[in-house]
Amino acid sequence: MESGPASELDRRFMAAAIRLSRRNLGLTGTNPSVGTLIVRDGRIVGRGVTAIGGRPHAEPQALAEAGEAARGATAYVTLEPCAHHGRTPPCANALVSAGVTRVVGAASDPDPRVSGRGYAILREAGIEVVEGVLAEEAADMLRGYLTRSEKKRPEVILKLAISADGMIGRTGEGQVAITGPASRRQVHMMRAESDAILVGIGTALADDPSLTCRLPGLEHRSPLRVVLDRATRLPVQSVLAQTARDVPVLMTAAEDCAPERRKALAEAGVDFLGVELHDGEIALPEFLEDLAARGVLTLMVEGGAFTARMFLAEGLVDRLALFTGPSKIGPGGIAAPVDRDHIPEGFCLLREARFGDDVYLEYVKGD
Amino acid sequence: MESGPASELDRRFMAAAIRLSRRNLGLTGTNPSVGTLIVRDGRIVGRGVTAIGGRPHAEPQALAEAGEAARGATAYVTLEPCAHHGRTPPCANALVSAGVTRVVGAASDPDPRVSGRGYAILREAGIEVVEGVLAEEAADMLRGYLTRSEKKRPEVILKLAISADGMIGRTGEGQVAITGPASRRQVHMMRAESDAILVGIGTALADDPSLTCRLPGLEHRSPLRVVLDRATRLPVQSVLAQTARDVPVLMTAAEDCAPERRKALAEAGVDFLGVELHDGEIALPEFLEDLAARGVLTLMVEGGAFTARMFLAEGLVDRLALFTGPSKIGPGGIAAPVDRDHIPEGFCLLREARFGDDVYLEYVKGD
Repeated sequence: MESGPASELDRRFMAAAIRLSRRNLGLTGTNPSVGTLIVRDGRIVGRGVTAIGGRPHAEPQALAEAGEAARGATAYVTLEPCAHHGRTPPCANALVSAGVTRVVGAASDPDPRVSGRGYAILREAGIEVVEGVLAEEAADMLRGYLTRSEKKRPEVILKLAISADGMIGRTGEGQVAITGPASRRQVHMMRAESDAILVGIGTALADDPSLTCRLPGLEHRSPLRVVLDRATRLPVQSVLAQTARDVPVLMTAAEDCAPERRKALAEAGVDFLGVELHDGEIALPEFLEDLAARGVLTLMVEGGAFTARMFLAEGLVDRLALFTGPSKIGPGGIAAPVDRDHIPEGFCLLREARFGDDVYLEYVKGD
Repeated sequence: MESGPASELDRRFMAAAIRLSRRNLGLTGTNPSVGTLIVRDGRIVGRGVTAIGGRPHAEPQALAEAGEAARGATAYVTLEPCAHHGRTPPCANALVSAGVTRVVGAASDPDPRVSGRGYAILREAGIEVVEGVLAEEAADMLRGYLTRSEKKRPEVILKLAISADGMIGRTGEGQVAITGPASRRQVHMMRAESDAILVGIGTALADDPSLTCRLPGLEHRSPLRVVLDRATRLPVQSVLAQTARDVPVLMTAAEDCAPERRKALAEAGVDFLGVELHDGEIALPEFLEDLAARGVLTLMVEGGAFTARMFLAEGLVDRLALFTGPSKIGPGGIAAPVDRDHIPEGFCLLREARFGDDVYLEYVKGD
C-alpha cells in the first residue's frame, strides 16, 4: 500500500490528524469526517476537519489556515482527497494549487469517483504521495462512511450492557441498572457520534426510553431514533412519540400495520419507513439498505435481546460494544446474546477500557 | 430496445401500469414508485404499486393479489424488476416463482445491481421478455429515481408563474397573484409528488411562504422545505421556521454563517446542511450531491428569479414547469429567467395544458 517512505514523525502527525477527524463524527451528514494537517518544517501550520453539515471538506480549510506556508509543506489527510469536480475544485486539485509538495494519506476512498484518482491527480502534479499510513486507525473513524459506500448499508454497532453473570436484564422488569454512570456517559457519547440509534418494540414498550444524548452541551447531537416495530405497537403516549417533534423518530411500517395507530403516530410527528416481512419478521437487509439510502452512515443498536439476535443471525453487526458491570442479575435474567466468553466468529478485540467499575470491550468484524 | 413483439394491447396495459405507478409518487422514499399489472387472458388479475415508505415493491403485491392466476400470466412492470438479494427474494425471482410466462417491461434500471440482470433472471427461467415498451413515458414518472442513480443528484424541476408580459413579480412587493386557483392546486399537487421544495432567501424574506401542500386530504404530503441562505438571514419568526417542527425545514450553512442566528433556528427545529461557497455564492453541484445522498430524488425550485437563474446557469435544471397567466405586471416587473419564447437550448416540450385562464407548458431536457 505504501508508495514511499513514512517516518515515525509521519505516523505521529497522522495520529494527530485522526484524533482531529473525530471532532465532527456524526455531524457531517453523508460526508465523512476527515482530518487534515498541513506541516511545514515540523510545525503544524494548518488544520481542518470536515465542517459540521459536511462542507467544506477538511483540506480547503487546512490550506486556508496555512496560507502561503502551504507552499513546500506536507499535508496529512485521513482519507484520500476527493477527485470529482463540482463547482469548487476537488480537494486533490486544491492541494496541488496550494503548492503542497508531499501528501501523506491514511484510508482509501471506495467511492468510484475518487478511488485512486485523488492520489493520481497529486502524483501527476509531481507531488510525493505516501499512502496507507495508519490506514486502519483512520478507517476505524470513517467506518460508517466506508461501510455505506462499500455495502450500501450503514455500519451497525451493537451495544450491550451485561451483568457479571452474562445477563442484560430481568424478564418483565423494564430497565435494570447494570452499568455505572461512567459507562452511561460513554454510551451517550456513542449516540452523539452515531447517525441513528435503534431499539426493538419490546424494549420501547418495556423501558419507554428517550434514546437521546443527554451529555451536558451535547444535547443537540441526539441522533435519529429508530424503532423496529412490525405491528405499530408504539403508544402515542410513549416518550419517543411525544418527543418526535424535537428529535426525529423513524418507525418501520409493514404493509399490514394498523393504519389508525400509524396515523396517530404520524400526527405526533413520527416518520415511517416501509419494510418487507420475511417469515413474519422485518427483512433487515432491505431495511438497512433503505436507511443508508436516506443518509444514515452509522446505526447503533441498543436493544433488546431479540433485536440483537436478529442482527447477529443475519451477519449484520460490524462492531460489538460490550459494557460489563460488576453485579449479578441472577435467576429470571435475560441472557446476553453475546458476552466476552461468547464472541461470534470473525470478530477481533479492538480496544479495552475501564469505566468506573465496568469493563468495556470493543470488537470489530474483519472483512 | 424491444426484444420481442409488443402489441397494441401491451401498450395499453403498460399505460395503465404507468398511471398506477403515479399513485405513490413522492411517497416511496428512496425506492422508485413502480407499477405492476398481472394480466391473464386479457383480464387484470393483480395490481401493485410500490408501497408508501418504499417497501414492499410493486411486483410481490401484484403477485399476491393474482395468486394462482399468475401462473401462465403476463406481468407489466414500469421498471426492470430488481435483481439483488436481501432477505426477501428479488422481484425478478418472485415473478419466476409465481409462474409468470411473459414479462413486458418499460424503463431500464441504471442501478448496477439491477441493470440488465433483472431481465436476465427472467430469460434464464424461460420467460418471454419484451423490454422498452413505453419506456419514455415510464421513465418520465421515475425521473427522480433515475436522475439520482445516474447523476448522484436529485431531478431539479424549475416551476415559474409568469405574467402575460413575461414577469414573475414586481420589485419589492412580495407575492403577486399571477396565476389562478386551478394552477395553484396543480402546484400543490407537484409539491405532494416531490421530495423537496426549494426557495432562495430572497423569496423567503419577501413572501414569508409556508411552501406546504394544502390540498384537502394531502396535507400530510408536504415535502421537505429547503432554503438557500448563505448568510443565515431567515428570521426565527418566519412561517418556515415557526412550522419547522411540523414539516421539516433544511437550510444551507456556509462556514462563515452567523452562529447565533443558526443556533436560534436550530432550536426552532430547523436542520442545516453544510455548503461550500464559490465566488460568494453557494456551490450548487456539491449541494445537490449532498441532498441526493440524504435521499432526495426530486427537488422543486419555486423561486425567485435569482435562484432560478443560478440553477439554469449551472445547467442543473431537468424540467421546466411554466404556468402563464392572462394578466400583465407592467413597469417595475421582474422578468422571468425563461418563458415560452425563451426556452434554453436542449429542452423539448413534453406537455401542454390549460388550468382555468392559465396556460401550462412543461419542458424536459434531453440527455
